[in-house]
Parts: sequence; C-alpha cells; structure tokens
Amino acid sequence: MTDPLSKQATATDIARAVMAGKVKASAVIEATLARIEASEPTVNAFTDVLAGRARKRAAEIDAGVHRGPLAGVPFAVKNLFDIKSLPTRAGSKINVDGPKAGRDASLIRKLEAAGAILVGGLNMGEYAYDFTGENAHYGPSRNPHDPTRMTGGSSGGSGAAVAAGEVPLSLGSDTNGSIRVPSSLCGLFGLKPTYGRLSRAGSFPFVDAFDHLGPLARSVEDLALSFDAMQGWDPDDPVCTDRPADPTVPFLNEGIGGLRIAVAGDYFAKGGEPEAFEAVATVAKALNATRTVVIPQAGVARAAAYIITAIEGGQLHLPRLRTRPQDFDPDTRERLMAGALLPGSWYVKAQRFRRHYRAAVQKLFGEVDIILAPATPCTAPKLGQVMMKLGGVELAVRANLGLFTQPISFIGLPVVAVPLRTPGGMPIGVQVIANHYNEAAALRVARHLEKQGVVSAPAA
Amino acid sequence: MTDPLSKQATATDIARAVMAGKVKASAVIEATLARIEASEPTVNAFTDVLAGRARKRAAEIDAGVHRGPLAGVPFAVKNLFDIKSLPTRAGSKINVDGPKAGRDASLIRKLEAAGAILVGGLNMGEYAYDFTGENAHYGPSRNPHDPTRMTGGSSGGSGAAVAAGEVPLSLGSDTNGSIRVPSSLCGLFGLKPTYGRLSRAGSFPFVDAFDHLGPLARSVEDLALSFDAMQGWDPDDPVCTDRPADPTVPFLNEGIGGLRIAVAGDYFAKGGEPEAFEAVATVAKALNATRTVVIPQAGVARAAAYIITAIEGGQLHLPRLRTRPQDFDPDTRERLMAGALLPGSWYVKAQRFRRHYRAAVQKLFGEVDIILAPATPCTAPKLGQVMMKLGGVELAVRANLGLFTQPISFIGLPVVAVPLRTPGGMPIGVQVIANHYNEAAALRVARHLEKQGVVSAPAA
Repeated sequence: MTDPLSKQATATDIARAVMAGKVKASAVIEATLARIEASEPTVNAFTDVLAGRARKRAAEIDAGVHRGPLAGVPFAVKNLFDIKSLPTRAGSKINVDGPKAGRDASLIRKLEAAGAILVGGLNMGEYAYDFTGENAHYGPSRNPHDPTRMTGGSSGGSGAAVAAGEVPLSLGSDTNGSIRVPSSLCGLFGLKPTYGRLSRAGSFPFVDAFDHLGPLARSVEDLALSFDAMQGWDPDDPVCTDRPADPTVPFLNEGIGGLRIAVAGDYFAKGGEPEAFEAVATVAKALNATRTVVIPQAGVARAAAYIITAIEGGQLHLPRLRTRPQDFDPDTRERLMAGALLPGSWYVKAQRFRRHYRAAVQKLFGEVDIILAPATPCTAPKLGQVMMKLGGVELAVRANLGLFTQPISFIGLPVVAVPLRTPGGMPIGVQVIANHYNEAAALRVARHLEKQGVVSAPAA
Repeated sequence: MTDPLSKQATATDIARAVMAGKVKASAVIEATLARIEASEPTVNAFTDVLAGRARKRAAEIDAGVHRGPLAGVPFAVKNLFDIKSLPTRAGSKINVDGPKAGRDASLIRKLEAAGAILVGGLNMGEYAYDFTGENAHYGPSRNPHDPTRMTGGSSGGSGAAVAAGEVPLSLGSDTNGSIRVPSSLCGLFGLKPTYGRLSRAGSFPFVDAFDHLGPLARSVEDLALSFDAMQGWDPDDPVCTDRPADPTVPFLNEGIGGLRIAVAGDYFAKGGEPEAFEAVATVAKALNATRTVVIPQAGVARAAAYIITAIEGGQLHLPRLRTRPQDFDPDTRERLMAGALLPGSWYVKAQRFRRHYRAAVQKLFGEVDIILAPATPCTAPKLGQVMMKLGGVELAVRANLGLFTQPISFIGLPVVAVPLRTPGGMPIGVQVIANHYNEAAALRVARHLEKQGVVSAPAA
C-alpha cells in the first residue's frame, strides 16, 4: 500500500489507513500543508490555505468525533465554492469585497460529513469563463507536469493541486469543459456528473443550464468514493434532482461486460492534434470498441452552447460590468459585455436547437452505452500562448480548448475524463461519456482501463 | 329547451337534440350556414367557410357513422389551427402562399371524434400578436354587441362567431390573453386551460412557453363538454402533459362548497375603468368572497411576459421579416423586428423572474383555490381606436387590453373568463383563476355563477 503520508497517496489509501488506525488524520494534514507550502511557488494552485481549520478538523477526527468513508482525506475546492467566513472569489477581484459566506457549500458539507478535511480554496479562471487556468488577478495556475504550461481551466487550481500531489482530491465546476479540460491537460481523472445530480447550493453560478460540480482525482476509486458521498437531493438547490443516491463504488470493479462502447466520429475525429485522436484510439482498442457513432450536429451544439453561455454570463454580470468594469480581467470583461448585447432571438434559437439535439443524442444511447471522444484537442499549451495550431489551422487557444467538451455538457451528459501520457511526455485526456444518470457505467469503464494500465494519473 | 336550430342554442342543446333524434345534424348545419351568411357582412368572423365539408360530415352523423357527446355541434376554429387542404393563415397574408395542411389539428380531430362538425376558419390578429381583433389583410372582426367596436383579440373571429350566434362553439389560442380578452369584450365564456393540458399539435405557434389553445362558448357546460373531449396526451405535441383525461362535466353542478375564493388586490384592483372592478365585485359578492390576496409582482410579470413574447416572436418570424417585410401588417412587423433586436440578457432575466414568480404564486394557492380578477380593463373600444383612458391615464389600446391577463398566462394557470353586462350595455369579463390542473374548480365556480344568473352570455 502507498504510504498515506506521501504525495502519491490517493483518497482511498488515506481513508483506509486512517480508518484502520495506521495513521492519524493530523499527520496527514501536516504532510499535506508541508507539500502545499513546498509546491505553491511552482504551481500557484491555492488562493486560500485553511491550515487552522484543517488542523482542528483533523484533531476531531483523531478524537473519534467524525468518521466516514473519506476519514482524514484532505481536499480543496475551486474558489467559487462557498467556504464559511471567506468571500467567494469565483476567480475575481470584485467578489473579494462582497460578503463572507455564512456557511460551506453543500458539497463541502457532504464531503466533510464523510470524514474529509477541507484544506483550502483553489485558483480558477475569472468567473469560470475560461479554458486556460490563467487569471489576471491571482496569476496563472501552472501545470505540475511542466510549469511553463497551462493547467487548462477554468478549474485550473483544482487540476494543479491534485496533479502536484498537494491533495488527492479537489472539486471543480464544469460549464463547458472546466473539469474535463484541466483533467486532460494535468493528467487526472475528472468526473462531470449528470446535470442536476450534485447540489450546486453555495456555489457561485455561471450558466444555469450548464453548470455542473464534480471531483478531480488521481484514481477512479477516488472519483467514485467522493461522488457517492456527494450524491443525493438537496432542498437548497432547486435544480438538484430528487432521486435517491445510487452508489457507484460497489460496482466499480464489475468490468465492462454488457456495455456497448463506441467511438465518436465526424466532429470528434477531426480538428485536433494527432495525439488527441491517438489517445482515443488507444482507449478504444483496450476496450475492443470498434464501432463509430456520429453525434449529429455537434458543431452546432458547440455554437449554441457558446451563445447561451455568452448571454447568460452577460446577464449575470451586467450589474458588475456597469459599476466596476475596471476590476474585471479585460479578457473576461470584453466577452461578458459582448454577451450582454447579443440578441435574444439567438438565445431562443439556441435553446430550441438544444431540445432537438438532446432528443437526437438520447436516441443514440438506445444503441450504445458509452461514447469515447477526446477531452481536449491537444496537450497543455504554453502559459500566455494566445494562438495554436489545430489540425493545421491557426486558432485562438482560449476559445478552442473546449472544442470537444462543449457539445457534451450542453445536454448534461455524465463524463469521466481519463488521462494518458503522450509520447511527448505531457498528458492528455479521453472523455468516457454515458447517458444521463449512468455515471456508474462511465466509472466502470474508467476503472477497467486503469486496472489494465491503459490510463493513469501519476503525481507530477 | 332551446330550439336546436336557433342561434341561441348551445352545443349542449344541439348535441342532446341530435342524440335524441329530435333534429338532424344536416338541419343544424343548414341553419348554421344560413346564419353565417346572414351575419358575416356585419361581424366578419370567418376567413374560410367549409360548407361542403360540414354538409358531408353532417350526413355521416345522420347516417349513424359518427356519434359522441358533441354529435352535430357546429364549431369553427381560429385560422392558426391546421385545417386539412387549407393553408394555415395564422392571420397573415404570407402564410397563404405556404403549404396546405396535410391533416387537421389535433384538437379539431378530437372534437370531430366526439361528433362535432367543423364549419370554418376564423379571423384573427396577424400571427396572434394582437389584443384588438383587427387585421390589416382581412379586415377587423366586429363586435356583435356593437359592430363599431372591437372584438378583442387575437382570437377576434372566435369571439365574434360565437357572440353573433353563428356557431355555439369556437376554438381560440391564448398566449397573453387572446381567448380571455375577446371573451370579455364579446360577452362569452372562455377557457384558457393549464399550460400543456391540451395538445397544440397542428397549430401555428407564437411563444412556446405561453401558447395555450382553448374553447369559447355561450355556456359553461359547453366549455366543459368541449374541454373534456379535447383532453388527453398527444404524442404529436412534445409539450402536452402525459396525464390521463380528468373529466370536468360530471362535477360541474357540485357548487362551490369547500372552495376558498379570493379577489386579487393591488395590481388587479387598479389601472382599469370602474366597470371592470364592479364586475369583479359583483362576482365576488355572489360567491361570498370577502378575502383579498396579492399576487406579488404582477406588474413585473407582465413586463417579463412582454419581453419573452417579443423576443420569441422576433426569433420565430425573422426569416419572414427578412424576405417579405412588405407583406406584414406594419404594426405587427415593427413589433416583431424590435423583438428580434432585444438583448438576450433581458430574456434570461425575464425567464429567471418567471421561476421566482411561479413559486410565489404557487404558494398563494396553498391558501386559496380560486382567485378573481378582471379579464379586461374596460369594455370594447371603438374599431380603429389607438389610445384609451384607463383610470384617468391615456394609454395605447393595443398594448393594454391584456393588462390583467398577461400575468396569469405567464405561468400557465387555468382561467375561465365569465361574462357580465355593464350598465352601459356592453359586456365585460371576469377571470376565474385556479391552480394548475384545477380547471374543474374554475368551471364549477363559473357554472355556479351562471346558475345564479350573475353571469351569462346571450347571443347579440
């Protein structure tokens, strides 16, 4: 077993050791805080380290006050989650002047109820309108596999902290790809659950119809363990689905028998670098997936996702754009202002298309259970890089890292991003996409690949 | 019993007589066609009279081929309903060049399956964006109680045809008030059912979230009889609710015992002419309703309904606005073009408010079962009248006839409009508003008032 005090230790390793009395939660936290102190100058993942709070909680766990399947597991959250007594930054400078949160976000409370220990808030792209992990106010989060490169965003700190081994588990949010993109670029497992499945209560919003919260980790078991701890209806979230928790951990090692697995063709088979498609091919081969399916009109779906995002984002931030324009990251500000001016007729058309597209994709899931697609079109670009070449075409980095994630979150399908190492050494991810509420199938496939050694997420 | 061949005969009168063999459906249709011919020069309710089709159908009913609770009942439909082999005008000139409908709208088929006989298509405001019943292409429908006055709209022909006694029953559509406004100005009973309860398949759309179809008639029994015949899930309408039909006729005469009835105060108690509020007071007194409730933020609801209507309408008609601007009614065109340019951030805010408002009104229905409010702020204005005085303030007629209907259809509540005669002689309506899916309660209240003689809808 991995040393629970090492940076390679997974959440599962730590919880087992703490439960078995082999290590004190306090020792885990001290090792964690030491690693954070050592790594931060390189990766810049944290905006808030909660040493006092974490130590207090660890002591309570060691005293037997709290127990649970995540006993003693340190975790950190993207700073758009409410943390009691802190302002909820959401990557911005403006929000720091806002009220301090009265209590923790629902998902933090659920993880802590399972024994986990919050150690801090994580860097992110301003107001989550970002695929890079860069931030004009707090500096970029840096990729632990190469600190001159992007983490991807907007959950950049969530990717960096776990990939650097600072914590084994983090929470992020994913509106258009913000969990899956940093999972891909930082070489992690990431779960974007079904829309509405995990409570968003106590998180700073972006786009109501697309916002998802979920975990990033270095093992599939850790994703499943934290997902199971976070499931369940929440009266504080009007969108959270009223269905009983449906544990995935017990089924994780069942293998892939009975699952019909296909590769997404057409849109998802072009417009990226060869390594993105090679990663998909490697995964498909390991799964004996020979079938290709076409998700129809995925390009239109991406355009519609952009329109809805721009307009909802513009509406949400309009009061701040009017009163504090100079305090935005200029890149975010321009896009939000443009979004606030887009015609409503575009929004209506995009929403109408969405209903049509959802029905078409649902039909596809009558034929297959899992669809494989690239998570990002390339490995991590350099920090500050504005343009990149994708399939020979010069494109903006910021707008295009989510090329393959947007058409999926657009209709709330659950996805597990699984990491591979490319020949060049940098990681890249593959999306394992399932039908609504079938996280269990995606997690089983990811676990199968992990056991085969096809995918893995070593600490950098 | 009323002579089933007379213009006073209700649908119930006719169906009973036909079922009992006291009159032939063919005789009913001949009397109907004669009345249409006599009245049309005055009221201009019909755009299409289907004499051949109606005679054929009547002969089949007399031959025993078709029977049902509406046997032999002539009815006509707003010309946004598909009628097989006719183009679906939707009040426009442009649509006449479009394809002919391949089959009748779902609700026409349901009424005919119950034995009713379609006799024609009815005049309406262009593309239903109207409260007046005027139409630049087909001329205004005229109020049978005073042909120099408006019918109200947009289901103007649906109001005129029934009030003139041409037919006992018509179908209209109501997006912001288009059944309730002509019911009020023409002195009819009108039912705007719960959103999604009656199929919209085969009807020309306007605003997806607000469009409702429903009947207008001269008796509450006729509303209930036709509503029961039209209920039920329809696979051709994605919005139609999947719940079994829930007959209202058997409960119609149960009285109002057990129903908590209140008058809407605040917004609904000002901004209209005294006769509108006197009508509500008359109804309230007859029901011993002494309580007043406040529907919170009804004015904001109306504004939000306008924004969503303008933007969805603009989006829907954009292709036609681009290619055939000169073929629109100039009044409709300007509003649709303006709507297509409104910012999406307004739309998002209006939809967000709608969720909030729906929850607040739902809460109110924990305390009361029925809410009474005016249907229109005044009796029928003069045809061509552009401005009117409401509560001493000069306002546009076109925009303000739906003042009291918009905040209700905005969240899809069922309403029965009940007619009273004002001291000046012209009719005016009162909205009997119930909670979602509680049409039965609103119909019971309307029937109770009708039996007491408080409300009634004589042919003009």
